[in-house]
Amino acid sequence: MDLWYTEFHTPNAGLKLKVKETLFVGRSNYQTIEVLDTYEYGRVLLLDGLVMTSDRDEHIYHEMITHPALYLHPAPKNVLIIGGGDGGAVREVVKHGGVERVVLCEIDGLVIETCKKFFPRVASELNGNDRVAVVVDDGTEYMGRNISIFDILIVDSTDPIGPAEGLFKEDFYKKCLAALRPDGILVAQSESPFYNINIIKEMHRNLREAGFPVINFYIGAIPTYPSGLWSWVMASKKYDPSKDFDPARFAAHRVNAKYFTDEICRAAFMLPAFFKEAVFT
Amino acid sequence: MDLWYTEFHTPNAGLKLKVKETLFVGRSNYQTIEVLDTYEYGRVLLLDGLVMTSDRDEHIYHEMITHPALYLHPAPKNVLIIGGGDGGAVREVVKHGGVERVVLCEIDGLVIETCKKFFPRVASELNGNDRVAVVVDDGTEYMGRNISIFDILIVDSTDPIGPAEGLFKEDFYKKCLAALRPDGILVAQSESPFYNINIIKEMHRNLREAGFPVINFYIGAIPTYPSGLWSWVMASKKYDPSKDFDPARFAAHRVNAKYFTDEICRAAFMLPAFFKEAVFT
Repeated sequence: MDLWYTEFHTPNAGLKLKVKETLFVGRSNYQTIEVLDTYEYGRVLLLDGLVMTSDRDEHIYHEMITHPALYLHPAPKNVLIIGGGDGGAVREVVKHGGVERVVLCEIDGLVIETCKKFFPRVASELNGNDRVAVVVDDGTEYMGRNISIFDILIVDSTDPIGPAEGLFKEDFYKKCLAALRPDGILVAQSESPFYNINIIKEMHRNLREAGFPVINFYIGAIPTYPSGLWSWVMASKKYDPSKDFDPARFAAHRVNAKYFTDEICRAAFMLPAFFKEAVFT
Repeated sequence: MDLWYTEFHTPNAGLKLKVKETLFVGRSNYQTIEVLDTYEYGRVLLLDGLVMTSDRDEHIYHEMITHPALYLHPAPKNVLIIGGGDGGAVREVVKHGGVERVVLCEIDGLVIETCKKFFPRVASELNGNDRVAVVVDDGTEYMGRNISIFDILIVDSTDPIGPAEGLFKEDFYKKCLAALRPDGILVAQSESPFYNINIIKEMHRNLREAGFPVINFYIGAIPTYPSGLWSWVMASKKYDPSKDFDPARFAAHRVNAKYFTDEICRAAFMLPAFFKEAVFT
């Protein structure tokens, strides 16, 4: 029997993956959680039917949502990750030896448990690393209790429908601004430039209205994500990726990565014409 | 009735597009040619069942296969395009006012006729531009009759199966070297870094064996192509993209493009870690 899973990226286009078997289906208070074993991408985590993580290309997303900010900030010590229950972002952050504490604040405990069980290489730092704290809580609530504490805040969320909707709003970004130290940096995943340019424009507007003085988007190629091109936004209180990356910091401390390099870190901020035009004009 | 077309990028993964109707099916001496009208990507050209060109994202491929070499060369006048029967590469090349003559050498006349009819915005320069010559011939044969003539040679081919197989071999690259002037540049599409890294490695080896002294790959994001990440190789007799791009040339003469920018032109050569490692170590 041929089993196929299709994620519809729009009503008229999608990615089709051949499935060996369904390893897990669960329902939390927030969403449906499924784990498929696929032939091409290994294990795939679906939340409400959408691909979040695959064994074969998860490293790209997780390297790109973490390392640029961790290199831009001259000495990041305290990092908060909101969402990111698979643990991939945590795994990348702890590669930076100077980081003293990473808090993962994921609203859905079942995502964490599922990933620990089915994605051990992704969730590898969620157990037994004393620099890592795992909190099952609402990210906005958690930030309200932790003011001016974090050097870097990473919003590793699902799409702006369902549980993550609030994480794309001005009010949330104001709370991020407050939770960050005076030279802190916020990074958030910001969807596909091809399919979701309007979400990107709105994020840009909301971050500006919230009061972030330096806002830049950057891109990376992720085969299992809609259109294959993905983006992240870096909203910063002080450091500017167009001039503050320090080559000495890259040279002094190199993370082991499969996609990210010093060059990719600079290249990712160079945006295609349509992206620049849509967001910055 | 719901009509869907799936291109299988591997036996286990593919892109699924909803189809309004099939506008054309033809069979030439070389391949099957189809034109679909899709909801998400507009008209789509298939050769032997694989997506070559879509109305919505063709500009990315055509801008990226042309402009980097046309900016790297200080004064390109004569350009040869092998393959590229849809005319998109020609359309981009003639945006460079200094180019005196572009020859399109496509083996399959039916591709040209089909694109003139169904993709008028792509094939727009194939009629009535006196700087453009369209030749229906085998590219290798054509080059054998035109030695040391071209400043830039663009191999806009299908995949290395079927009619284009020879266009990925050392023997063909030797003929390219001979057809180029002493400071000429060859550009060829070089498949998906995610799915076809072995083809990329072989192209690199073959180009080196053929005698090109400067070989670099570069990348761009194309949603309808396998994995969404595509690559091109630039094999040069003299100019080196790592040091010879002249900012003054970009500033003096800017092409109208939707993806390509000066920045993208530099960023595209900055490769992900896995790509650099596979090809250059």
